[in-house]
Amino acid sequence: MSATSTTRRAALLVTQGDPRGIGPELILRACAADKLVPGDRVFARRDVLEAAASCGAPWAERGLALATSMLAAPEVFARSKGPKDPVSQVEALEAAVEAVGTAQFGGLVTAPIEKLACQQAGFEFPGHTEYLAASSGADSFAMCLAGPTMRVALVTIHLPLREVADHVDEEAVSSVGRLFGSALQRWFGVPNPRIGVLGLNPHAGEGGMLGSEDGEVIAPAVESLRRWGEGRGILFDGPLPADTAFPRHHAGEFDGLVAMYHDQGLGPFKLVHFHDGVNLTLGLPYIRTSPDHGTAFDIAGTGRANPSSMFAAIELARTFATRVRDGD
Amino acid sequence: MSATSTTRRAALLVTQGDPRGIGPELILRACAADKLVPGDRVFARRDVLEAAASCGAPWAERGLALATSMLAAPEVFARSKGPKDPVSQVEALEAAVEAVGTAQFGGLVTAPIEKLACQQAGFEFPGHTEYLAASSGADSFAMCLAGPTMRVALVTIHLPLREVADHVDEEAVSSVGRLFGSALQRWFGVPNPRIGVLGLNPHAGEGGMLGSEDGEVIAPAVESLRRWGEGRGILFDGPLPADTAFPRHHAGEFDGLVAMYHDQGLGPFKLVHFHDGVNLTLGLPYIRTSPDHGTAFDIAGTGRANPSSMFAAIELARTFATRVRDGD
Repeated sequence: MSATSTTRRAALLVTQGDPRGIGPELILRACAADKLVPGDRVFARRDVLEAAASCGAPWAERGLALATSMLAAPEVFARSKGPKDPVSQVEALEAAVEAVGTAQFGGLVTAPIEKLACQQAGFEFPGHTEYLAASSGADSFAMCLAGPTMRVALVTIHLPLREVADHVDEEAVSSVGRLFGSALQRWFGVPNPRIGVLGLNPHAGEGGMLGSEDGEVIAPAVESLRRWGEGRGILFDGPLPADTAFPRHHAGEFDGLVAMYHDQGLGPFKLVHFHDGVNLTLGLPYIRTSPDHGTAFDIAGTGRANPSSMFAAIELARTFATRVRDGD
Repeated sequence: MSATSTTRRAALLVTQGDPRGIGPELILRACAADKLVPGDRVFARRDVLEAAASCGAPWAERGLALATSMLAAPEVFARSKGPKDPVSQVEALEAAVEAVGTAQFGGLVTAPIEKLACQQAGFEFPGHTEYLAASSGADSFAMCLAGPTMRVALVTIHLPLREVADHVDEEAVSSVGRLFGSALQRWFGVPNPRIGVLGLNPHAGEGGMLGSEDGEVIAPAVESLRRWGEGRGILFDGPLPADTAFPRHHAGEFDGLVAMYHDQGLGPFKLVHFHDGVNLTLGLPYIRTSPDHGTAFDIAGTGRANPSSMFAAIELARTFATRVRDGD
């Protein structure tokens, strides 16, 4: 590592997301606000960015000029047929994933995709997280949400509620706890993270009266996490009742919580971090963040989308990537 | 109804809760703060209140004098053997439920019980709510949490997570929606309530990709609620993704949300209303509230318990009972 590299920010890749959503305009806005900078690479169709700029917002013209100067090779968009063809979101993602493994890029920021359109385009995953894990060969991974005050990692993600309990096993809980502990140290820069592990059932099972999994699955996982964390300076507590753990986390008692399923974690998280939350993936060989919102088709093209979460996603990826590179 | 009755506050009954928890001291504190007033009735063992007063807090002596002046007949505590015998919490509850049906009492406020101890004393219910519903013969009922900014009614309560999906049926969702709409009008005094109904699965099922219940069970229930609410001035919307509905509720877009299960509703609710939330039961022939916290054995007897939720429970019951009486 050269002496100069510590003073330079790590470079990022960013994908356009669904061309009919707010992703493309958020990229223009991030460029105009100097959140994305020369050296970063934008994976987008040029005409998708041009269409987004036609909203006429104050930042649109400068954003378009900067974003097009960072465009990755246009030949990757051979399958999509125009600026509104949903296939381009899959092409952008696949091309960015190809590129992110190379040494000069520190991380990937993904704008929102629309899952049904992606699946109709042959993308066989419920979301970014599962695709990125599969394409990188990660044997364990987790979705994590991070905001200025709260951080939540999920043991299961996009599952029907009735399938959740069968997917919460000891190894899954332990694996997410380990990934989260490592990320809090290595990426977030927390030397001694305190992690709360939620129960699956109401009141964490209330001593077995409201379900057996908290005692039989999660408690042993927390025990093994405690042993694993001891030599590493990482503390684990649980299983905790979900409804009282979030106020404790919010008050600063934990550096993060491991939630067992989507709404258990994201309901409380988004109530506090609706505009400044960032989605990130644990367990990949690279850093990946995304804004914590969807495509917002209803306001796309108006220039009114709130850019806070996209800006936060870019800044967090940059901070992580710079920290990892300089710590290597 | 006499003309003077509108100027007088409705009278309440209050139960001690677990004698080893913070309930008894919160009752003393509520008396000392004039939240409970002459005319109200306290269902507690005298020695339980005396033990609570021994914490020596500034409010303890006056609280004890006032609370003992409101004591209900001590003969109801025949089974419990002393101030720390958990059986007294069951006796207090059973006696208060006997009395609450009489015309002079507007509502019941229950301090926290400890469920395992209650069950060991022959109380065969997972919590207050289920017991009160069974003992009053209510054919439909629901648990509801209310705070200054948010209100949540639950379709299922104390169930292991893996049993939740099988208990969310169209009639259950409709029934809770109707009870909630009526309560918002009659008790909370909201003339035209707007109620959001949450989905069961992540993203409310994402068009069927993440579970079928949102489309097949909850959507038809919301349709029937819309028809029911039309002539009554009650608006229903849903099924809504849980993680984005709470920020919308918090921002004032809804007067209340119907959640499908415990942690889906209480996780976000308690994050905002940890100290000022109130638990209430919909569907009973009387008004019933309780503080939104447990027995807190770890701080019981120290006088340090935060009384906000108990005070709020008493005030809400009083407001409701006075409104119902004067509206009759």
